[in-house]
Formats: sequence, C-alpha cells, structure tokens
Amino acid sequence: MLKFYYAAHTCSLATHIALEEAGARYETVRMSFQRADQRQPDYLKINPKARVPALVTEQGILTETPALLVFVAQKFPHAKLAPLDDPFALAKVQAFNSYLCSTVHVAHAHRMRGYRWADDPAAHEAMKKKVPQSVGEGFALIEREMLQGPYVMGDTYTICDPYLYTLAQWLGADGVDINTLPKVRAHFKRVGARPAVKRALAEQLAEAA
Amino acid sequence: MLKFYYAAHTCSLATHIALEEAGARYETVRMSFQRADQRQPDYLKINPKARVPALVTEQGILTETPALLVFVAQKFPHAKLAPLDDPFALAKVQAFNSYLCSTVHVAHAHRMRGYRWADDPAAHEAMKKKVPQSVGEGFALIEREMLQGPYVMGDTYTICDPYLYTLAQWLGADGVDINTLPKVRAHFKRVGARPAVKRALAEQLAEAA
Repeated sequence: MLKFYYAAHTCSLATHIALEEAGARYETVRMSFQRADQRQPDYLKINPKARVPALVTEQGILTETPALLVFVAQKFPHAKLAPLDDPFALAKVQAFNSYLCSTVHVAHAHRMRGYRWADDPAAHEAMKKKVPQSVGEGFALIEREMLQGPYVMGDTYTICDPYLYTLAQWLGADGVDINTLPKVRAHFKRVGARPAVKRALAEQLAEAA
Repeated sequence: MLKFYYAAHTCSLATHIALEEAGARYETVRMSFQRADQRQPDYLKINPKARVPALVTEQGILTETPALLVFVAQKFPHAKLAPLDDPFALAKVQAFNSYLCSTVHVAHAHRMRGYRWADDPAAHEAMKKKVPQSVGEGFALIEREMLQGPYVMGDTYTICDPYLYTLAQWLGADGVDINTLPKVRAHFKRVGARPAVKRALAEQLAEAA
C-alpha cells in the first residue's frame, strides 16, 4: 500500500487531495516541522531533501509535488485527473504546476525560509517585505492569463486545481488580499467545497495526537 | 511547424537539446536578454511571464522547461526520451526535473536576479554570497543521491540529462568547482559530446547577426 508523508500547512496538501480524489488506498504519516521530523535520520533515508511530501510505493520512493500529482493521475486513470494521452493538454497542465512550484511557491517561501538563500538577517527581512508583491504578481498572472474557470484548465477538474488551492490558502499570510483576485477567490471556494478536499484538510488540520 | 523561442545562457538550452535529440522539425527565434526582448509587447503576447523558453505549436503556446521536456518526449515517442507509460519511472524523471527547476535553478537565480525577491541592494549582495553554498548543496545531493550514471536515470538517456547538463554549465560562475562532483563532471562531459547537444549549443552560442 502507498504510504504518504505529509506535514500540515505545506504543499503536501495538494498530493493528499489528489490521493483522495483518486480513491487511492494509502496510509499517512504525519510529520511535525515544529519537531523537525523532516531532519531526523530515519526520514532523511526516505527523503534526503528533508522536505515533504514523500510517497513510498512498492517500487520505491517519490517526491516533488508536480511529479506526485502526475503519478497519482497516471496510477489511477479512472479518476481522470490529467489529460495523459494529449501531449499539448498535458503540457499545459504541467506548465501550470511548474509555474506554481518554481515561481509562486518559491516567492512564498521567501517569507519564512530566507535562510535558504542568504545568511544575513537583514536580507531575510528584505525578502519578507517583498513577498506581498512577488506572490501578488504570480497570482495576478494566474488570474489574468492562466485560470480558465471554473477550473484551472476550464471545465475539467485536474491536478492543477488542488495545487492552486493549496497555494491560495497562504495568500492572506503572504499579504495578498484574495478579494483582489475574483477568479482565484471563486476557484478557492469551489475547490474547497469538494468532499476530497474536506477529507484531506480534516486529517491534516486535526490536532496532533 | 514548431517555433522555439530561446536566449543564450538560459535554461532554454535543455528544451533545444531535446528538440534536436527528437529530430523535431522546428524553427528558432533567438531572443536577446541584453536588449530585453523578453519584455517587448510582442513577446509578452507569446509569454506574459517574460521568460524563455516558449514553444509555439499548432495547438497553442507552451512554456516551462519541465513541461516542454515531457511534451517533446510525448510528441516524438520514437526518440524514447522518457518512460511515458511507466507511472513510477516517469515520476522519477519528473521529480528530478522538478528539483532542478524549483530548487537548483532557483538557488542559481539568486546570483543575478535577486531583485525578484528583495528590493534592497544589500540583500542582493547577501544572496550572491550564498549561491556557492546553495547551488553546491543542490548539486551535492544530485551527486550523492540522484545521478545514477552513466545517465541521470541509469543506462537510458532521458529528458533529465539535457536539463542537468544545462544547469551544470553554470557551476563555475556559481562558485562551485565541478571537480568536487566526479559523477556530475563525467555526466557533463558525456552529454556534451552528443551531436544533438553540440548542434543546439552551436546555434545558441553563435554570434548574433
């Protein structure tokens, strides 16, 4: 059975939702970043990058959200979570998710993880200050150019939707008012109402034992 | 026919190599970042993100290196550039490319594009200082955990290889000595000897007209 490592308030939510949408059988391992679980030797054997998510499969271990999302779509094709056999349509899906991981999530990470890219505390403060603008510009582009509506790719729900939902959760803390992004706001509400999303969130946000 | 927008010394080289490996028919448009071609209104209609690469297809426009690489693999299946029908193997390929775009390329970008994440010139200097460490750690992980050899995924050349080659080109300028990374160094030499790589490089590095 699949074994899914996640931590609350991280991008692991996107894959968690996809697993729920797919009706996958899987068990979960809840990691605590407060306890620095991701840096423990046992976990570093699973993911030497010290990040979540990680998915242990019968064939080996997988990481990285865009990869996991396509994996879930391909492994559970009945759920129709990606246009796997249409190279152009799949590339559109992947380009969107790639933009999220390499630009939007990276902009967001400068609010709390500036130590990845500079040692000077003053630089961390300068990075924090820019987050509302950099995340705001990323989402403005999504609003204007990418989000077709009602779902990211138009009428069909795909693996882009839980990923956008996950990053949109952080807009308030990133200093971006979701009300300035009406399509993103409507998408956030629409996706948040899905039973699969509610189930994944309920587990991730439950009080730790 | 496909139309490929690139600029020299950017990650667009990875897709350019893949197009050559695939034997694709395509024309190229050379962009100059010195002239800020990527910010001209005509190009922003093609890619509103003001980045390269972009690939104009008969169905529409595609961007983002990891997406373009899978697109080329899927559109030209005879070239066998990715294990498209094996969900686990494809996810390994995608996880590697996702790590390059969201972690390694991002670390590198802090050397010259700190303005994306902070406005303070002192912060840009602090970012520059950290690049040898952050890029170095990314490549150390590739050396230790990811690069199977002779190619990234083992015996078979895939879309991971031109992408790793492209980022490895920048190691010297990023302050990382490739001689400390023997597997990466051997890979760089091996991939650089491929005729497709030589053809793509010859075009990209030719004197602009």
